[in-house]
Amino acid sequence: MMISTSKLVVGQQATGTDITVPVIKIQGQGAGPSVYIQANIHGAEVQGNGVIHQLLEAFKRQPPLGDVTLVPMANPLGINQKSGEFTLGRFDPITGENWNRQYHFDAAIIDELVNHHFDASEAELASRLRAAMAAQIDDKLASPFGVKSGQHLALRLQKMALEADIVLDLHTGPISARHLYVPAYAIEDAPYFGIGLNIIIPSDFAGALDEASFSPWWQLSEAMQKQGRKLPVMVDAFTLELGSQEKLDMNAAKLDAQGIVNYLSHRGVLAESAYQASDSAPELHACLLKDYRAVYSPYGGQIEYLAALGQPVAAGEPLAKIWHFDALGTAQQVGRELTLPEAVIPVLHFASASVRQGTELYKVLTNTFRLPAPDR
Amino acid sequence: MMISTSKLVVGQQATGTDITVPVIKIQGQGAGPSVYIQANIHGAEVQGNGVIHQLLEAFKRQPPLGDVTLVPMANPLGINQKSGEFTLGRFDPITGENWNRQYHFDAAIIDELVNHHFDASEAELASRLRAAMAAQIDDKLASPFGVKSGQHLALRLQKMALEADIVLDLHTGPISARHLYVPAYAIEDAPYFGIGLNIIIPSDFAGALDEASFSPWWQLSEAMQKQGRKLPVMVDAFTLELGSQEKLDMNAAKLDAQGIVNYLSHRGVLAESAYQASDSAPELHACLLKDYRAVYSPYGGQIEYLAALGQPVAAGEPLAKIWHFDALGTAQQVGRELTLPEAVIPVLHFASASVRQGTELYKVLTNTFRLPAPDR
Amino acid sequence: MMISTSKLVVGQQATGTDITVPVIKIQGQGAGPSVYIQANIHGAEVQGNGVIHQLLEAFKRQPPLGDVTLVPMANPLGINQKSGEFTLGRFDPITGENWNRQYHFDAAIIDELVNHHFDASEAELASRLRAAMAAQIDDKLASPFGVKSGQHLALRLQKMALEADIVLDLHTGPISARHLYVPAYAIEDAPYFGIGLNIIIPSDFAGALDEASFSPWWQLSEAMQKQGRKLPVMVDAFTLELGSQEKLDMNAAKLDAQGIVNYLSHRGVLAESAYQASDSAPELHACLLKDYRAVYSPYGGQIEYLAALGQPVAAGEPLAKIWHFDALGTAQQVGRELTLPEAVIPVLHFASASVRQGTELYKVLTNTFRLPAPDR
Amino acid sequence: MMISTSKLVVGQQATGTDITVPVIKIQGQGAGPSVYIQANIHGAEVQGNGVIHQLLEAFKRQPPLGDVTLVPMANPLGINQKSGEFTLGRFDPITGENWNRQYHFDAAIIDELVNHHFDASEAELASRLRAAMAAQIDDKLASPFGVKSGQHLALRLQKMALEADIVLDLHTGPISARHLYVPAYAIEDAPYFGIGLNIIIPSDFAGALDEASFSPWWQLSEAMQKQGRKLPVMVDAFTLELGSQEKLDMNAAKLDAQGIVNYLSHRGVLAESAYQASDSAPELHACLLKDYRAVYSPYGGQIEYLAALGQPVAAGEPLAKIWHFDALGTAQQVGRELTLPEAVIPVLHFASASVRQGTELYKVLTNTFRLPAPDR
Repeated sequence: MMISTSKLVVGQQATGTDITVPVIKIQGQGAGPSVYIQANIHGAEVQGNGVIHQLLEAFKRQPPLGDVTLVPMANPLGINQKSGEFTLGRFDPITGENWNRQYHFDAAIIDELVNHHFDASEAELASRLRAAMAAQIDDKLASPFGVKSGQHLALRLQKMALEADIVLDLHTGPISARHLYVPAYAIEDAPYFGIGLNIIIPSDFAGALDEASFSPWWQLSEAMQKQGRKLPVMVDAFTLELGSQEKLDMNAAKLDAQGIVNYLSHRGVLAESAYQASDSAPELHACLLKDYRAVYSPYGGQIEYLAALGQPVAAGEPLAKIWHFDALGTAQQVGRELTLPEAVIPVLHFASASVRQGTELYKVLTNTFRLPAPDR
Repeated sequence: MMISTSKLVVGQQATGTDITVPVIKIQGQGAGPSVYIQANIHGAEVQGNGVIHQLLEAFKRQPPLGDVTLVPMANPLGINQKSGEFTLGRFDPITGENWNRQYHFDAAIIDELVNHHFDASEAELASRLRAAMAAQIDDKLASPFGVKSGQHLALRLQKMALEADIVLDLHTGPISARHLYVPAYAIEDAPYFGIGLNIIIPSDFAGALDEASFSPWWQLSEAMQKQGRKLPVMVDAFTLELGSQEKLDMNAAKLDAQGIVNYLSHRGVLAESAYQASDSAPELHACLLKDYRAVYSPYGGQIEYLAALGQPVAAGEPLAKIWHFDALGTAQQVGRELTLPEAVIPVLHFASASVRQGTELYKVLTNTFRLPAPDR
Repeated sequence: MMISTSKLVVGQQATGTDITVPVIKIQGQGAGPSVYIQANIHGAEVQGNGVIHQLLEAFKRQPPLGDVTLVPMANPLGINQKSGEFTLGRFDPITGENWNRQYHFDAAIIDELVNHHFDASEAELASRLRAAMAAQIDDKLASPFGVKSGQHLALRLQKMALEADIVLDLHTGPISARHLYVPAYAIEDAPYFGIGLNIIIPSDFAGALDEASFSPWWQLSEAMQKQGRKLPVMVDAFTLELGSQEKLDMNAAKLDAQGIVNYLSHRGVLAESAYQASDSAPELHACLLKDYRAVYSPYGGQIEYLAALGQPVAAGEPLAKIWHFDALGTAQQVGRELTLPEAVIPVLHFASASVRQGTELYKVLTNTFRLPAPDR
Repeated sequence: MMISTSKLVVGQQATGTDITVPVIKIQGQGAGPSVYIQANIHGAEVQGNGVIHQLLEAFKRQPPLGDVTLVPMANPLGINQKSGEFTLGRFDPITGENWNRQYHFDAAIIDELVNHHFDASEAELASRLRAAMAAQIDDKLASPFGVKSGQHLALRLQKMALEADIVLDLHTGPISARHLYVPAYAIEDAPYFGIGLNIIIPSDFAGALDEASFSPWWQLSEAMQKQGRKLPVMVDAFTLELGSQEKLDMNAAKLDAQGIVNYLSHRGVLAESAYQASDSAPELHACLLKDYRAVYSPYGGQIEYLAALGQPVAAGEPLAKIWHFDALGTAQQVGRELTLPEAVIPVLHFASASVRQGTELYKVLTNTFRLPAPDR
């Protein structure tokens, strides 16, 4: 297998040190879609790095047909930024901005293609769209007023990612069950990952890498469709949430890597023989993004998290108990159950036991439905 | 003067302690617009509290005609949250969300008024709009899924603010000259504040208190206009940026308070006699919001801030010097000047001397124009 | 059972809000030592609050003979101070000072007793020592130069604690097995807690509550001994580390509470009938404080924690694997095992997976020995 | 002038990046003491880097006689660690430990010299002491249990510093006047720096670089003296506090550099001609370290700092006003003056305007006396 590695400069520290990201490129052994896989853009979400390691091991056994770019530890600023013992990795400590909301997409380039290249071949459209996006990114980076730290990072990563046909962004939740963000058009491919909880998202762009990767192609497809031309969505992108932050587990990483291998095999990046059905495939639950809801703590207090993540909780059943130890020895209520008026599947919960009123305690699937097992 | 004080509960700590905000209500002595003035929603921006103190002293000498509500230290969570020695007050340390982007406005209530109450009197329209906004806020606060900490705070403040005809939100920048956010329709009133740097903003809503206060009324006015009815914008709101954060200066606060008194006198909240022309009225510069630009550091390094805030800087003149002390003793450049290709007026600069590449070093007015002195 | 509750004011916020600690006092039903139990002086270490809740339930079933003071959530500043999602609770975010190193002890008061009251009765000595300590604390709090925030808190808690014959300070580690700090003179009492890992500490004072509670009495006993008078150590104090921070588990709290009940029953605070031998009593390991060692990461990297906490690890066996994902695809080593040249029992490990070189990865017992089971 | 530069590796990030410190070595042009000058060990204290730049410029004009080692930006971890906008640079964000309290000194090596090499020449004693200290540092760094991040940094810096005859550690306060820590034995040299406020310190070791540099030599001198041999203190070390943190001012740096040049000229590191008497030499105030006192805020509140730093404040005169804006409109006191019962010279004040009860508001010289002007 042909592997090359390099360091991508994505910023500069106050001390003058370059901030660099490791990039591993594997040259495909034949004809297959190209793939870009990134991990750890949120500093505390380390498990994806282990998954990339396991993927690389898998590729050594069975080389990919298409080109593959792997970017572990994609956000050195986030990884190296401590806040107490923990890693403050979801947002820039200076600006509060989420590191995964700073990618670029300007829908104007879609209009240009639809208006002036309506009849171009798929290959030409793809080539023009990639060139237009790359040019916009270069323009932004060259502004005499500069760009934000988060954009220095995101735009340079995005320039690599936009070359790929498949983009996978590896994350974790705080304390979390595995879950997957699935663009609605790709719902039939999602089961191949073997991830139990699936959130179906629309074509909107809110700044994340998965959206920045599929939105241009999806919106192009939609815009062409409106004008009467049927055009497939030529790039797929998924965000995989692989358990809990601040945790590295190489056995779990092996399992996660096999799910990705199965998807890549289904998509023709790997030979069919790479596919391995899981002995312990979970049931596949899903809901729409609008039904993926946060539950905010109705009181300040200390929390005993009760609900098992990934398991359905009936309406009225307790998700957690909120403790008010300031009421000990008084007539006031010391423990209060947190319940919801509808059935949910809790996906993740907050990482700390001490919460103010209004802290996001849980994220839950509501109005869930089932996805079929992969079609094999 | 009739003063009443109370504590508004806006949240609850993990320890069970209520989070409260002081509210001072002054009953107007006659007929005049009602006013809501708030300070310190960003925890480090304390100067506005001093201004409220000085306003109260001014009101004791000359009682207002309309009702006035004063809310100093509006964000106890932000004020009491330390991050090192400093106050981490611009955003929630848990979520990264700006405390001043969590107010509510749903444009649907405008459609309702235009479609079903087109011919209602101004008073009826105002009453219906306030009632609709209050009802929406109550609905949000009553959700079984809860609301965020920042919304617990913002929505309860907003419920008070939406009763007023004039809303002033007192802020500061990091290291900053005085500046004022002016809704475009109210540009003629702005000079009465006597603030040298003015940023003219459109009717969009992005979550801040000034926008949440004027957008409904402005959008109502615009929507009525489209249907042929001329309706004034019935509520005015301004964000005043009164110098630098982490600094309390009672002499400056007296000056700032007199500017507000002058505006309120112009607006009929105070008798004309309260107006005092300033001996040292600054020249009034302005630019559109789209021309109020951030300058991001092109390198990592340590910064010597050179440009005087509030003073024009010509194209090519240095704003700052970026030092690379890691290059000392080498052939590399140790100090680099930061210049811009166009003339600007620097408004504020970053609070720290050590910056990564992409840190927001300055905010500057570009394409500036002059506002006339107040018409008196 | 006679319970009274109150709020102790221990500080004041920047916003003027009092900082208060809940205090629950139970009047003893007969003759027995008095007890002071405190939890959560480190903001993230919440489990002790649950244990106090379970103790209170146990006392309702079987009232104590001696007076008991319970102080849950002893550090509101630490509990309410967030740093990202987590609670920054081990040290003051402004000064870096550990909240549990700010108690007071001045050995000069021992000399005074030995020199001038050598022949006083035990009761008189105890009374004089308590009075002297209380007077010193009052003096400090009255200084015209003021005292630190951490001392406002610690000294006021200490004033309550110094009235008791038994002081228990409930903590947790970061990710941790249960362990107990045992003053060497009280080693025979330690097994009654039923905690598997025991660290035997000398009579030195370094600022913690257990030391501040036993050191005066221990040093008095030692000083008297030197002069030929045998005097028991009249106050016992232990620090219990009840598992991991940021976690509240009421079932575990019940078990922890029973261990404390067993100790208190052994000491005569509760009737003998309160004692319940555990079905799952652990083996009791111990080492001296000087042999309780930190293991600092030899490299920067991402950590897979391997060793089971509380279980012996042989010399050369891996405690953890340090991953260098920047070496993926290169000839460099990607994963390195962390081993030690001697047998240890890991007690706790760091809470985050991303570490710089020199981060404290583990604390381990070395040169361990066994303690006998409680003598019943 | 012979200059060589290098990067000293002092640690490794979680991402695997080496943490390096720039080192500039100037070879002396003749016979003179060797000098080690370091800046920015506390991340926010940047001014010393500018001073090192100006020193280097001065050395280019007038090369030093002895060897000089310059270490700007000595703590990359501290400089690059943001906490909100500001630099969290006084202590390790993970452990709370002050970066300038982690140097090493073990007094046992003094006993060894006194007991076994009492009659050795000064040169031999110096050589043995340096070798013993270097060996201890190497031993610590080689421990199989590892050492802390702060020690990786401090010990490697200290290995360079211990080769020098003069060690200068450049710091700043939070908001601060220039001040100087002077070891008591070197009090006659202090005035050459031309710094107005001087704190006279004893020979104790508490972990700082100045102490780590002079304590071994001072304690050796004291121990020899006790045995009847008069031995000079062979190494001098000073901590210079050059104004306020987070501020880089190259004009001030030039002034600061000239003070150091004057001292070095007095000490023979530079020719006498390098000395330039200052036009604006300040009066020289001093007090003993035990009289350098912190003033803690007696209340929580928002602070208006009133006293001019470096200027005497009489007993009863206000240092600051503490504002309680929660009392506005009530009968309670809104502003309270902070006074002290004795005359002081305020040296520095806290960097933030919002403080809890017990925050260190000021540090002040008490019981001051005057130092004579430099003897020239």
